[in-house]
Amino acid sequence: MKSFLIAKSRRLRGTPYTSRIEKQGVTAYTIYNHMLLPAAFGSIENSYHHLKKHVQIWDVAAERQVEISGKDSAKLVQLMTCRDLSKSKNGRCYYCPIIDDNAGLINDPVVLRLNENKWWISIADTDVILFAKGLAIGNNFDVEIIEPEVDIFAVQGPKSFKLMEKVFGEKITKLKFFGFDYFDFGGAKHLIAQSGWSKQGGYEIYVENTEAGLKLYDHLFEIGKELNVKSGCPNLIERIESGLLSHGNDMDNGDNPYECGFDKYINIDSDVNFLGKEKLKEIKSQGIKKKLMGVTLDIDNISITGSLDLTDQDSNIIGELRSACYSPHFKKVIGIAMMKKSYWDIDQDLKAKINGDICSGKVCDLPFI
Amino acid sequence: MKSFLIAKSRRLRGTPYTSRIEKQGVTAYTIYNHMLLPAAFGSIENSYHHLKKHVQIWDVAAERQVEISGKDSAKLVQLMTCRDLSKSKNGRCYYCPIIDDNAGLINDPVVLRLNENKWWISIADTDVILFAKGLAIGNNFDVEIIEPEVDIFAVQGPKSFKLMEKVFGEKITKLKFFGFDYFDFGGAKHLIAQSGWSKQGGYEIYVENTEAGLKLYDHLFEIGKELNVKSGCPNLIERIESGLLSHGNDMDNGDNPYECGFDKYINIDSDVNFLGKEKLKEIKSQGIKKKLMGVTLDIDNISITGSLDLTDQDSNIIGELRSACYSPHFKKVIGIAMMKKSYWDIDQDLKAKINGDICSGKVCDLPFI
Repeated sequence: MKSFLIAKSRRLRGTPYTSRIEKQGVTAYTIYNHMLLPAAFGSIENSYHHLKKHVQIWDVAAERQVEISGKDSAKLVQLMTCRDLSKSKNGRCYYCPIIDDNAGLINDPVVLRLNENKWWISIADTDVILFAKGLAIGNNFDVEIIEPEVDIFAVQGPKSFKLMEKVFGEKITKLKFFGFDYFDFGGAKHLIAQSGWSKQGGYEIYVENTEAGLKLYDHLFEIGKELNVKSGCPNLIERIESGLLSHGNDMDNGDNPYECGFDKYINIDSDVNFLGKEKLKEIKSQGIKKKLMGVTLDIDNISITGSLDLTDQDSNIIGELRSACYSPHFKKVIGIAMMKKSYWDIDQDLKAKINGDICSGKVCDLPFI
Repeated sequence: MKSFLIAKSRRLRGTPYTSRIEKQGVTAYTIYNHMLLPAAFGSIENSYHHLKKHVQIWDVAAERQVEISGKDSAKLVQLMTCRDLSKSKNGRCYYCPIIDDNAGLINDPVVLRLNENKWWISIADTDVILFAKGLAIGNNFDVEIIEPEVDIFAVQGPKSFKLMEKVFGEKITKLKFFGFDYFDFGGAKHLIAQSGWSKQGGYEIYVENTEAGLKLYDHLFEIGKELNVKSGCPNLIERIESGLLSHGNDMDNGDNPYECGFDKYINIDSDVNFLGKEKLKEIKSQGIKKKLMGVTLDIDNISITGSLDLTDQDSNIIGELRSACYSPHFKKVIGIAMMKKSYWDIDQDLKAKINGDICSGKVCDLPFI
């Protein structure tokens, strides 16, 4: 596998933390929402073991916010997602598939309800702001839509609770999963949610006051030494083992939310109005023809740079591998695949051609762990 | 300047040409419309000299198309751009700023009119398809909006005309600048435009039939040996010298088209209906407060990874450098900057702090050459 440099420019802009993480040893970037998102600090496997035992601080400022405020804001946010938000509460996060009128996935953000008339959509890697603007203009909604200057960093790992308690006291340990509240540090209030893109537990700090946020970032590294705090980033191995889906990798506009296993976030029987509702009813009544599943492959390394065909014994294509990694836990390659109907059952045998060699594997459930 | 690897994944997908350019020596990528766009084949300066003398083939499949078809397609395309398209002709390309209702730039694509009811918007790096879908749904327009499987490669450089004539005969040399037509090769028709992201002349081949397109790609390398054909990519030095603006680098949603010098593409006195028209009238009557200009800096290298403050003698900020490179032609650094009012005149003195050192420079006109 050859490696290639990333050509930096203003179009792929850095974050307030970029100069820090470059001193802290970042080695690879991905691009996410037109920004640099760290992808490795040396070995991903070492970072994976550390994340599962200790605590890491992640520059995830590339998780941008689309702020929707004004009289029609709730109406617009609801229009974009198939999840019923009519009983949503202030101070809570909601994982919400955003779909178009054809029920194709556009994004899978976490929506934060700041209040009835102010929402943040914390987006995956597509320009949701353009969809929101188009819908608002076309519908003549009374809303303001901006990308506020919010630069998230995350504290993730089992010791993240202890680390954050050292700064914010017991109050922060009372925060429920997907709850958020405001906490003081460095002379500023920070919105902090119990959330993050790992299953190891932790927090996301939505930094609006950059100077105060950088103070907090540095302070956490200082007081975190005894907890073995390190710089990290969303970890490919951990997120696949945990079955955390990645928009653009595991699913895209060609997939609908039923195919991605989002059934509990699809409220077609509610009274709320959202795009693609009729299409979703149709899909539900007809049944889906493909489905995201886990797969295991009996090999010890892989590098996925696009979709990879999965076949049966007779070389018929039965699915498409979309993300994969070597799992130190399972001692084989695991991945996330869109499997065709009749081939998505657990233990379905499959083959894949990797670097010219055929390997064997099986379908399994998600998450892996 | 440290360098960093790019972490590949399906989300930053490759193109039909990726495996070829990786054999042909690509060394760095940027990400553009969620795809790999080659950014260097070794030395950018060597590639610049070659591009200005010979002919290069570029993988620019990341220039995606938004296809808008149907009864209301012309209405929707016009709604998105401040350029009057009412007299547009089939078989022609149009450079069209796309703006929102506040006159902020969203993209600066080339629009191809295939016919009155079918348009391709050949986009820069934002998800214009989401804006178009939002507007179409909100306005209840009768249109179909898709991202077709079109993977452009470009033939650029002074010898591109000779190279393409060897394949397609004299007919292709008759194509006017920004004209397009269909040409046969490998058993398929290819839409070819006289266009491209350099000022050295050339063509863009809009490949719809991948197999036939790859045959053409390979054939051009074979028969181009005597013309010294090489792999290349949009060249930072050449594009800055030529004053070719880059959305996301030189301008973004915080800028309006007047500030970017797009006056000749702004038709506020026409009868056509487009977003931001009233706002543009207001801006025109009040006058702009900042403007894109060229700058020169008396130093011999630079690497821009974000906006860089430009100051006067007293350290007051007078502008913001957004793209820059060392120009072998001028033997100094040249760049594109958003200059504040009162400081955008030619020969305005300026200072910049680069790697801790203060350097001097001047404002100048665009393009440089």
